[in-house]
Amino acid sequence: MSALRTLSRRTASSSARLISSRLAPVSSLSSRSFSVSASNMGRFDGVEPSAPSVKTAIPGPKAKEQIADLDKVFDTRSLNMLTDYKSSVGNYIADPDGNVLLDVYAQIASIPVGYNNPHLIETMKSDAVVSSLVNRPALGNFPPNDWAEILRSGILKVAPKGLDQVFTAMAGSDANETAYKAAFMWKRQQQRGGAHVEFTEEELNSSMNNQSPGASELSIMSFKTAFHGRLFGSLSTTRSKPIHKLDIPAFDWPQATFPLLKYPLEEHVEENRKAEQDSLAEVERLLTTWHLPPCAVIVEPIQSEGGDNHASPAFFQSLRDVTKKHDVLLIVDEVQTGVGATGKFWAHEHWNLTTPPDMVTFSKKAQTAGYYFGKPELRPNKPYRQFNTWMGDPVRAILFRGIIEEVEKYGLVEQTARVGDYLHGKIQQLGDKYPGQFANLRGKGQGTFIAFDNPKRDEFLKVAKTLGINIGGSGASAVRLRPMLTFEEKHADILVKALEKIATSLQ
Amino acid sequence: MSALRTLSRRTASSSARLISSRLAPVSSLSSRSFSVSASNMGRFDGVEPSAPSVKTAIPGPKAKEQIADLDKVFDTRSLNMLTDYKSSVGNYIADPDGNVLLDVYAQIASIPVGYNNPHLIETMKSDAVVSSLVNRPALGNFPPNDWAEILRSGILKVAPKGLDQVFTAMAGSDANETAYKAAFMWKRQQQRGGAHVEFTEEELNSSMNNQSPGASELSIMSFKTAFHGRLFGSLSTTRSKPIHKLDIPAFDWPQATFPLLKYPLEEHVEENRKAEQDSLAEVERLLTTWHLPPCAVIVEPIQSEGGDNHASPAFFQSLRDVTKKHDVLLIVDEVQTGVGATGKFWAHEHWNLTTPPDMVTFSKKAQTAGYYFGKPELRPNKPYRQFNTWMGDPVRAILFRGIIEEVEKYGLVEQTARVGDYLHGKIQQLGDKYPGQFANLRGKGQGTFIAFDNPKRDEFLKVAKTLGINIGGSGASAVRLRPMLTFEEKHADILVKALEKIATSLQ
Repeated sequence: MSALRTLSRRTASSSARLISSRLAPVSSLSSRSFSVSASNMGRFDGVEPSAPSVKTAIPGPKAKEQIADLDKVFDTRSLNMLTDYKSSVGNYIADPDGNVLLDVYAQIASIPVGYNNPHLIETMKSDAVVSSLVNRPALGNFPPNDWAEILRSGILKVAPKGLDQVFTAMAGSDANETAYKAAFMWKRQQQRGGAHVEFTEEELNSSMNNQSPGASELSIMSFKTAFHGRLFGSLSTTRSKPIHKLDIPAFDWPQATFPLLKYPLEEHVEENRKAEQDSLAEVERLLTTWHLPPCAVIVEPIQSEGGDNHASPAFFQSLRDVTKKHDVLLIVDEVQTGVGATGKFWAHEHWNLTTPPDMVTFSKKAQTAGYYFGKPELRPNKPYRQFNTWMGDPVRAILFRGIIEEVEKYGLVEQTARVGDYLHGKIQQLGDKYPGQFANLRGKGQGTFIAFDNPKRDEFLKVAKTLGINIGGSGASAVRLRPMLTFEEKHADILVKALEKIATSLQ
Repeated sequence: MSALRTLSRRTASSSARLISSRLAPVSSLSSRSFSVSASNMGRFDGVEPSAPSVKTAIPGPKAKEQIADLDKVFDTRSLNMLTDYKSSVGNYIADPDGNVLLDVYAQIASIPVGYNNPHLIETMKSDAVVSSLVNRPALGNFPPNDWAEILRSGILKVAPKGLDQVFTAMAGSDANETAYKAAFMWKRQQQRGGAHVEFTEEELNSSMNNQSPGASELSIMSFKTAFHGRLFGSLSTTRSKPIHKLDIPAFDWPQATFPLLKYPLEEHVEENRKAEQDSLAEVERLLTTWHLPPCAVIVEPIQSEGGDNHASPAFFQSLRDVTKKHDVLLIVDEVQTGVGATGKFWAHEHWNLTTPPDMVTFSKKAQTAGYYFGKPELRPNKPYRQFNTWMGDPVRAILFRGIIEEVEKYGLVEQTARVGDYLHGKIQQLGDKYPGQFANLRGKGQGTFIAFDNPKRDEFLKVAKTLGINIGGSGASAVRLRPMLTFEEKHADILVKALEKIATSLQ
């Protein structure tokens, strides 16, 4: 542990200096004396610390005092680290005691391009943003006259192939739930015989009593160990942990087993193929037999909260085929996987589908949320069926546009693919050296969306913090890496050095 | 119609001048030559137009073109008016064709202190806001070190009496749904015997299958014609219109009849008292007999989307008593009524309850959302039971603080009470003059939260627009007034003049 500590101490004063200049304009990067080409130049070179710096226990004395105060008005039992955002920069997160950690958790995978990103700061200072903040529109009724332009130059510019429409929302849960609502309306319209068929008196009346046929008796199918949000509809499809679900009423919707692959993949080819085939057979069985017929299947490209569970492109291609065969929608939940972290802008691009998913939901790194769709029938047949007061947030739509500009300017998706390969290779080497400590390493070829299992996972995460690394877990035993898109090889080297120290200390 | 038109034309050029100087600093107000005392000085005197200005049909040629373009990527069938927010100011909303309307709809009752409010503009330009935008925290895990201070100086400063805690959310729907989740956890914990009692194996396992006992078979009771949001849990308690509910699966939760009072109240005292007693009896019957026992009753102080349905303070006092008697929670949904519009900061202050509601939800004019609570048992017994990635939005918490500052500085709640009385009196006079056109006038003593029924309601709203008034409806036949808190007697005069013209034209 001492080497990294020494390194941290050595760089502490220069870190402080660098942090204080973190708001330097972008142009100052070009005056750096480093001899790197523009394409290799890190976004935060010269402004972020060169290493973590741990000065106190975490929480330190100042944080402890402030947490005790916060707890009087706000539940702090899930608090991980009280944060000083003004002193956080790039890939580094700071706390009130002056500790500065390399952050590979990034606000539960939701910070895309670094803390205090200069381009985003400039973007958020614009008149358009200030106007959108103080004049928040009810988008469905009174959209701003530049709303089409904001959508086209931002959210829709990165729309998944084949999906040219968007319904905007506020966060992952309501992005998924509004997608579910679109799915229910679509299927019932199909059953009714088309958009022109009017609702019956019985439907109108029974809907007001929460009874069928007005309230449909259809369902959304999800997978075991899936996570799709925590409101009532989304929680009914979430199957992560009891603590997420206990005591909350739920719809009796079906769940199929997600293929739990064995690692290393090369050594379990047949077994894994069978697991995927079994899962698909179960999907098909449930689609045809469940007492509340599914109108859609929702799936994450990588089950993230559930423990970083992957499946093969072939599995997802078959899932697309099965959903088409049974005329139900395929909703891909890219809330955690989207926006570059897997080395593609959307993780489902790895599948090479011949027909696109019907809906793709997003949030987190997009900093705004919603669902993409393409089929015209997914617009409900009448107005006010899919509607709410705000229907999204133009400020965050503009922020996402700024994120996209930053991602494009610095080639951050490609960088993430490259750095992810580098990091995966290094951790694989650690796995060979420390058997059992980096078990079931996953995410090869998936950018920095990497995870492994450790038998003392919770302790692993705690020790990481003492070494200046902020890192998260998922599922029962997974350590999940969720660096930002600004994570480079040099950050990977710091991380790997710390991972080795943790492995040594836990042996 | 011509007089108002003439007035509009006469002021058009000065309106344009005034709009262009709308961002003038607050201090410029003091240099006005009007001889009014500071307390009577309007927030936007000297910067907003003195009258509406209608230059084209709405939508005009520019708006039509832009709407057609927007429709390619965004459903515009619920569009009311394409808006030019940069040219909107104070109580006036502008469109791309240069039409400027007095806005008594205010983004579905969600703009509190005027378009382009100078204090909010300054507030939103602050470093704290820019930092919160570009470094959006996962509040449950990594709260900013000034989060307690932001809560105390803003959201909690205006907490309803007896409620000193808050759980923050994103909008009205998830504010209500997280309140419901808290209610379910509270009641199940009580049934289990306390916070220390561990979950059983059966609960843990069944929760993952969406089955009881893990997924509870409790319910939330709401009222007929209520509106509480449009996600799956909140929509199950919403009973506004079939078009809001059709095709969406719903929980089989109970609804009691809301007392539909007859107007004028003075002439129907006995009848109305009986309607309220019948409603309370039904509440009590459902609480004790519904097959999924309610753990909470949710109610709006004034049913807003459902048509502006009021009940007496005595009704709500009794409802509080009944919920206490049966040991269920009372949740007051102040999403539309909160933040001053009824002449009290919270509408339920009109009831003079002896014990406070258990939870009060808010959104809209607060520009941030969540639920207030006081009982310590409403904090779930373990962390991560009430949790999500963002858990609210610090930027909007800071915005709400700015709104509160503005409300206090200009005494806007008191102003709204005063202007509301003035406006109610004027409309009452219109009602006498034009029988049937301003039927069932409601909201006396409720600030500007005023509504009336008109037999040609939809036409009424259309004609209003041609006269320079942006106005909304609710329920089947209600015209609902939802001016901002910056609405003054002079605006009321313009509105009343237009209302009379509409009444004449519809006779």
